Amino acid sequence: MRARDLAAPFPTVALDTPAIEAARLLAGQDLPGLIVLDERGYPSTILAGTQVLRMAIPQYCMDDPTLARVIDEAAADVILRELGDRTVAQVLPRQTADLAVVAPDATVLEIAALMARTRTPLVAVVDKDKTMLGAITLDALLDRMLTA
Amino acid sequence: MRARDLAAPFPTVALDTPAIEAARLLAGQDLPGLIVLDERGYPSTILAGTQVLRMAIPQYCMDDPTLARVIDEAAADVILRELGDRTVAQVLPRQTADLAVVAPDATVLEIAALMARTRTPLVAVVDKDKTMLGAITLDALLDRMLTA
Repeated sequence: MRARDLAAPFPTVALDTPAIEAARLLAGQDLPGLIVLDERGYPSTILAGTQVLRMAIPQYCMDDPTLARVIDEAAADVILRELGDRTVAQVLPRQTADLAVVAPDATVLEIAALMARTRTPLVAVVDKDKTMLGAITLDALLDRMLTA
Repeated sequence: MRARDLAAPFPTVALDTPAIEAARLLAGQDLPGLIVLDERGYPSTILAGTQVLRMAIPQYCMDDPTLARVIDEAAADVILRELGDRTVAQVLPRQTADLAVVAPDATVLEIAALMARTRTPLVAVVDKDKTMLGAITLDALLDRMLTA
């Protein structure tokens, strides 16, 4: 059982996708995270759902929970204003060193260790010429690990 | 819209639940994480799915990806041996300072900021006498935030 056997189609966004559209994709399809492709179609950033959420929250809410408590405004309005007309590239956090990408021959244990290390319930499977073959979610991986 | 309006029933595990059973619950029901209750029924630890996965992986796989690559054994066997007969309490990571718990009157922005800060796509809603009213998943929160 290798990464290539587990890779499944997964929706992606581009760097110039509107950030609000990326958030709606995550929410609408109940995805565990987002895969952002660069101009060549290579995964440049892979975010857990909570990191996507973070992009949509004003920094003052992150810094001070008491402020988030007293905001007398619908959360949806605050978030729409935060994301506004910005693109994914404009709201992306700086990528951590460890990109959640594996080669097609990665073992189940390698994939699991990468998910645990990056805390991302989603890895992209990428072959030698940097084509994305698909993605593996934590749910799919656990199903294989525990029912084998 | 407050936490009490969003709280929904969510499966929990106890400290003496076998760890392998907790992992199977996560996998079988595609949960975003696990809520561990203490003896009084109060959430003592809330883990993202990737943190549950981490409990099931031997430390040498986490430390050295090249070892995970060469293990000539089914991942399921490695994991079963790692979890063995241990209970949830025995394999739990040390809880981080920030427990993903909110009061019933927490606002959507407070809940969102807590999920983003703890990187846990799941919060428990707990009232003053420390009874758990239910949980809010990232998916449920995003649905409310983006369709309001």
